[in-house]
Amino acid sequence: MYDRIKGFRDFYPGEMAARRETIDAIEDTARRYGFREIGTPAVERAEMWTDKSGDEIVDELYSFEDQGGRHVTLTPELTPTVARMVVAKQQELSKPIKWFSTRPFWRYEQVQQGRQREFYQTNVDIFGSSEPEADAEILAWAADALTNLGLTGEHFEFRVSHRDILGGVLESYDADVDTEAAIRAVDKSEKISQAEYHDLLIGAGLSADQAAEFDDLVSSGDLEAVESVADTDRVTAAVENLQNVLEAAADFGAREYCTISLETARGLDYYTGVVFECFDSAGEVSRSIFGGGRYDDLIEGFGGQPTPAVGVAPGHATLSLLCQRAGVWPEEAVTTDYYVLQIGDTRPEAARIARDLRERGHVVETDVAGRSFGAQLNYADSVNAETVVVAGEQDLANDEVTIKDMESGDQTQVPVDEFPGDLERPTYDDFE
Amino acid sequence: MYDRIKGFRDFYPGEMAARRETIDAIEDTARRYGFREIGTPAVERAEMWTDKSGDEIVDELYSFEDQGGRHVTLTPELTPTVARMVVAKQQELSKPIKWFSTRPFWRYEQVQQGRQREFYQTNVDIFGSSEPEADAEILAWAADALTNLGLTGEHFEFRVSHRDILGGVLESYDADVDTEAAIRAVDKSEKISQAEYHDLLIGAGLSADQAAEFDDLVSSGDLEAVESVADTDRVTAAVENLQNVLEAAADFGAREYCTISLETARGLDYYTGVVFECFDSAGEVSRSIFGGGRYDDLIEGFGGQPTPAVGVAPGHATLSLLCQRAGVWPEEAVTTDYYVLQIGDTRPEAARIARDLRERGHVVETDVAGRSFGAQLNYADSVNAETVVVAGEQDLANDEVTIKDMESGDQTQVPVDEFPGDLERPTYDDFE
Repeated sequence: MYDRIKGFRDFYPGEMAARRETIDAIEDTARRYGFREIGTPAVERAEMWTDKSGDEIVDELYSFEDQGGRHVTLTPELTPTVARMVVAKQQELSKPIKWFSTRPFWRYEQVQQGRQREFYQTNVDIFGSSEPEADAEILAWAADALTNLGLTGEHFEFRVSHRDILGGVLESYDADVDTEAAIRAVDKSEKISQAEYHDLLIGAGLSADQAAEFDDLVSSGDLEAVESVADTDRVTAAVENLQNVLEAAADFGAREYCTISLETARGLDYYTGVVFECFDSAGEVSRSIFGGGRYDDLIEGFGGQPTPAVGVAPGHATLSLLCQRAGVWPEEAVTTDYYVLQIGDTRPEAARIARDLRERGHVVETDVAGRSFGAQLNYADSVNAETVVVAGEQDLANDEVTIKDMESGDQTQVPVDEFPGDLERPTYDDFE
Repeated sequence: MYDRIKGFRDFYPGEMAARRETIDAIEDTARRYGFREIGTPAVERAEMWTDKSGDEIVDELYSFEDQGGRHVTLTPELTPTVARMVVAKQQELSKPIKWFSTRPFWRYEQVQQGRQREFYQTNVDIFGSSEPEADAEILAWAADALTNLGLTGEHFEFRVSHRDILGGVLESYDADVDTEAAIRAVDKSEKISQAEYHDLLIGAGLSADQAAEFDDLVSSGDLEAVESVADTDRVTAAVENLQNVLEAAADFGAREYCTISLETARGLDYYTGVVFECFDSAGEVSRSIFGGGRYDDLIEGFGGQPTPAVGVAPGHATLSLLCQRAGVWPEEAVTTDYYVLQIGDTRPEAARIARDLRERGHVVETDVAGRSFGAQLNYADSVNAETVVVAGEQDLANDEVTIKDMESGDQTQVPVDEFPGDLERPTYDDFE
């Protein structure tokens, strides 16, 4: 007997039904916003990640040499792939390009609650607009996607910032500061002690006093204080952009879910503008549920024409933790509209009834295993059949079938040629 | 700029929309039959394939050693994975187990029309029934899935056989025949010359006369002739089973799509009973569209209790070739219900209209790129918007919006508070 590989999940029907309902709701929200589904390869050239240095993802790649000698990898994220796709057809695609897709990704990292080595994300991106409305539409979509799952502002919040605020403030210090190292320190600040945080900032080039001042300023989330401390064009522009995005988010109905949070810096180096992370408001899911932001330089970095971009990628593992915590995760159970039970040699009539009901769009099962009455009834119960149609030899001899409501146990005889007849969704109640 | 790996496809929105429509229709048919969706890993232990010898798949594996030293592979097919899943929960799962899933698989093989190295299949299986009704339900599902795509009996046929007929006939010859080699020869017979075919049969242990007789018998598809040539229990049982499956298929509405075709042998060694392949009736798609059959020994071979099984796995690449040939492939284009066009500073009202329409379930876009009237109208046209709602400063000053039908070009003014008002799907026709 073979075992499953660590960090990879099997999803059996009950849990899968809940996941499917969730994914369908999220994708439906994306479609309504005019995001278009794309399909992408599971395998890409490893160079798409290894050519960039300093990216933690590289250590986590499932990379290998294929039989043709290519150095390839299972994709650990979607962004480089969509960047490649945009570059490949940049002349033909009308802008803005609005894409989404749901699929697995793979990273060889420590397995823990909400984090597997194979994990599913719905990626949603807009290419070709640098306007604040694009950032706001991503925020609005994310908020709608979550509220359509039954979540509310009591369950989640978006912590929003702008990458240049931190960068600009750091730049304004009279020191040779490694901005990216300092931003990575901010990204880690909630998970480490204040002393460790300050040490990382000092390691990035700040003095001890500057580290403390920077920490205070960032914690305050006060955009006016930011502008007075770092009165540079870069910071002013970043603050203004963040304010514009939040104003557009107000028009789009998403402002109420957003909190300004300058700590929010996102770990990935390719972010260039507004960044945000979704958190459990109650703090029970301790990690960020998902994050997103603006990455205006990536397409050009992939050899394309300069193309601004903004996106977000909810991960389904953390999202299901949040939904469970909030009590809105769908019941993990299969559903069945009808089970057509055969007693004796009634297959032709049972098959006719099953076909008629399936044509009406219902989930219908009938016996394909030659089981007894009791075994069929148990099976019907195990798949949560709502109505059992008993096609017994005795019944059919009287040109009847028995309709049984599985919740109440009530049953009644019905002329076989009236079932389903003209009814779209006949149940016991129609015949009692 | 990075290139895509050979044998892997990018699907842009137009083509993806057609694929999604097709996959949704196929999965919807599976749900109506009571097949339950499962989710499965992309990576498994390579031993699940390499432990079996003689399987061509092994040469085509994308296998590698992961960072934990495991010998793993991208899965080239689903069956071993579902067998593993059945074995892991065989006590809890109520039988019959009816599962489906759609996902990619990977094989390093020659790329050609309808065959990529990454390819999508919808796998549909029944575990726990050895009755002919289970085989027939798989045939009926496959037929319904294809007819629900718009295909008819003029477009496709199922060539049906039973693995034991060939095996039993071969056994009945007074010779030390390598049955599996002979069956593989039959499986190849349509692609090679008769002389080559006979040579393969002779290589498998038949005499030249026996090879010729066997060829004639198999070509005839005559079950009575088969029984008179090979009057053994095994052949009699196989012929009877095949006849019973076809009788059940008649009750289930699928008999009309089935042709008895003893050449049909399926390449995979694990098939044990009825086997079938779907072919383009017009022969334009020369390869089999997909195949399936009964594999009663596999679960036991994976360490589980003996569990009969039957299944089928339509591949989406060959299926789309068949649909295109038959003229029923969906149009490869995106659709949009509304584009809400902004002129001047009308974002709050445009956003309100877009939200109201999205709440009604429609696909709605509005400007997120600060584009001109003309650029917005071109974009609306490029996404095939049905209706454009013009929210102009002038219009709104008069408490109106303009509703434009994109097909006719007709437009009319509508009071802004009546749009969308009580209408579920307002169009130009509602206001003209």
